[in-house]
Amino acid sequence: MKNVNIKELARELNLSVSTISKALHDSHEISEKTKRRVMETAARLNYVPNPYARSLRNRKSKNIAVVIPEVADSFFSLAINGIESVAKEKGYHVLICLTHENFENEKAILKEFKGGRVDGVLMSVSRETSQSDHISELISNGIPLVFFDRVCEDVATAKITTDDFESGYKAAKHLIEQGCDKIAFLGISKSLSISNKRREGYLKALSDHKIKADTKHIILCTNDAKQNYSLIKKLLQEKNKPTGIVASVEKLTTPVYNACMELKLRIPEDVKVICFSNLETASILDPPLTTITQPAFEMGKTAATLLFNALEKTNFNLINESLVIPSALEVRSSSR
Amino acid sequence: MKNVNIKELARELNLSVSTISKALHDSHEISEKTKRRVMETAARLNYVPNPYARSLRNRKSKNIAVVIPEVADSFFSLAINGIESVAKEKGYHVLICLTHENFENEKAILKEFKGGRVDGVLMSVSRETSQSDHISELISNGIPLVFFDRVCEDVATAKITTDDFESGYKAAKHLIEQGCDKIAFLGISKSLSISNKRREGYLKALSDHKIKADTKHIILCTNDAKQNYSLIKKLLQEKNKPTGIVASVEKLTTPVYNACMELKLRIPEDVKVICFSNLETASILDPPLTTITQPAFEMGKTAATLLFNALEKTNFNLINESLVIPSALEVRSSSR
Repeated sequence: MKNVNIKELARELNLSVSTISKALHDSHEISEKTKRRVMETAARLNYVPNPYARSLRNRKSKNIAVVIPEVADSFFSLAINGIESVAKEKGYHVLICLTHENFENEKAILKEFKGGRVDGVLMSVSRETSQSDHISELISNGIPLVFFDRVCEDVATAKITTDDFESGYKAAKHLIEQGCDKIAFLGISKSLSISNKRREGYLKALSDHKIKADTKHIILCTNDAKQNYSLIKKLLQEKNKPTGIVASVEKLTTPVYNACMELKLRIPEDVKVICFSNLETASILDPPLTTITQPAFEMGKTAATLLFNALEKTNFNLINESLVIPSALEVRSSSR
Repeated sequence: MKNVNIKELARELNLSVSTISKALHDSHEISEKTKRRVMETAARLNYVPNPYARSLRNRKSKNIAVVIPEVADSFFSLAINGIESVAKEKGYHVLICLTHENFENEKAILKEFKGGRVDGVLMSVSRETSQSDHISELISNGIPLVFFDRVCEDVATAKITTDDFESGYKAAKHLIEQGCDKIAFLGISKSLSISNKRREGYLKALSDHKIKADTKHIILCTNDAKQNYSLIKKLLQEKNKPTGIVASVEKLTTPVYNACMELKLRIPEDVKVICFSNLETASILDPPLTTITQPAFEMGKTAATLLFNALEKTNFNLINESLVIPSALEVRSSSR
């Protein structure tokens, strides 16, 4: 009798791959009834579940992959250093694959891995990624995967994140304490976990301080530098323009500074700025940039350590291993 | 009869792999006598030369590798974008592998590729790389390789570089024209082509302007940020301290600025600074940084285009395809 894979099982049951994966992992999010239905059909169709598929594989590529949107962001170059510090000790090679924030690229890269090219994957999803079947499928093919920073909540595996909600809150609260009452938020994605949580934290800080959020001050930036510059310039030319800006990713720093320069707005006198950033040059900018600094190296190192645990230990279950490592507010002149 | 590879051929002849490779490629650097000796021994031992080995291979991994020292340097992240713009069009995946400036890492990565994991390689060597047998061997295994930026002169293949000598000259000449007569040069390697050529250009500019170079002003930086900061601080505390600095790589920017800040030296009044850099934040630093800006995207794109020509065309010889793309001097306040 032919085995079925998780995709075929999902099709048979008319459920998503994520739901099947969660049901098979006994997740509390899935009803007992659905779990029973999944288990019965899995048995009937001879589905080969995860741990068995895993033991069938020949783990000897001695490669792990890091799948990330880009490397121009300092967060990722530092996280890679953390990952490589562990991989080197284990005698593994690290292959870095870039999605360039594109969902189709991300799917194509993960598809490549099914052939056994890599033993495990560390991943931060693209800004376009809003569904996760391509990831659940890879895991079901016996390739362990650990998320870091940008995660898919509905995939049952370890997630190493930072305290995005608290950091968004902390950033906005800091600007409020510096006297700002009109604070803009620059996001980069509608679906991305980090962008949404940072925005929610920002909104909570505003409401806790009885400040009404202005929807015009919540900007969705793109992956195009010129377009972001125009969006920010437009924001700063509004009649009711913000006196503070929370930028949710590093690459928004230069367009914010340039737009202020162009419009002859002084930082921090006219606009106070805080950015989620690991820029080495933050302290030598004009003015020095206040940042929410993520524990990038630590996050990469922790994610890689978990992945190797999954590769080396038979009883290690990644599902129980998520971890949040806090970011730090570093106050400099751009917000004082 | 067993075939021999290039390494065995080199051992038999007591010559280096590079020499063998050049002799087989009819290089003008090798004497006719040596060429004849190599050809005879190759025939006797049944050596399978390059083009034949290449046609034997099954090119279907649909992967190319980019082997570079790091991704924290903006030059490399921009070059990767150039490379990926070509690879995507060709339907290829790009695997990025980092040497972290370590020669042993570099050798281990290239060794991995012999198994056919990748169809071709784009490479910028580590700061420690002073010999090239590991690279010649890979090429002799039928895997085409194109250098970009940091090259091994003695490997017979395409090299995409920028005008390092001219740029070093231009940088020093600019500082001289701004009134500096004591100019320091911060290098990063004794063996690296880019570092040496930039230094030679700097030295030529000094001698053309009748300025005697002070050997104490030529600093060899390391791969350790803290150590570089100390070296630069020490340089700026000397009795005969420089009034101008040419920094040969981007990552020296922050330690130079921080050392000046710490020593209360004003840029550009006390020390003028120019740096080889593609930093996006160059224009928003305090003060804005004068740079030699490399054509990073263009260099990556050109190198990748040549590599795909070698993969797709039977009569295409990478040896004839080296190219120099000029860098640009962008004058900002740090040197005025």
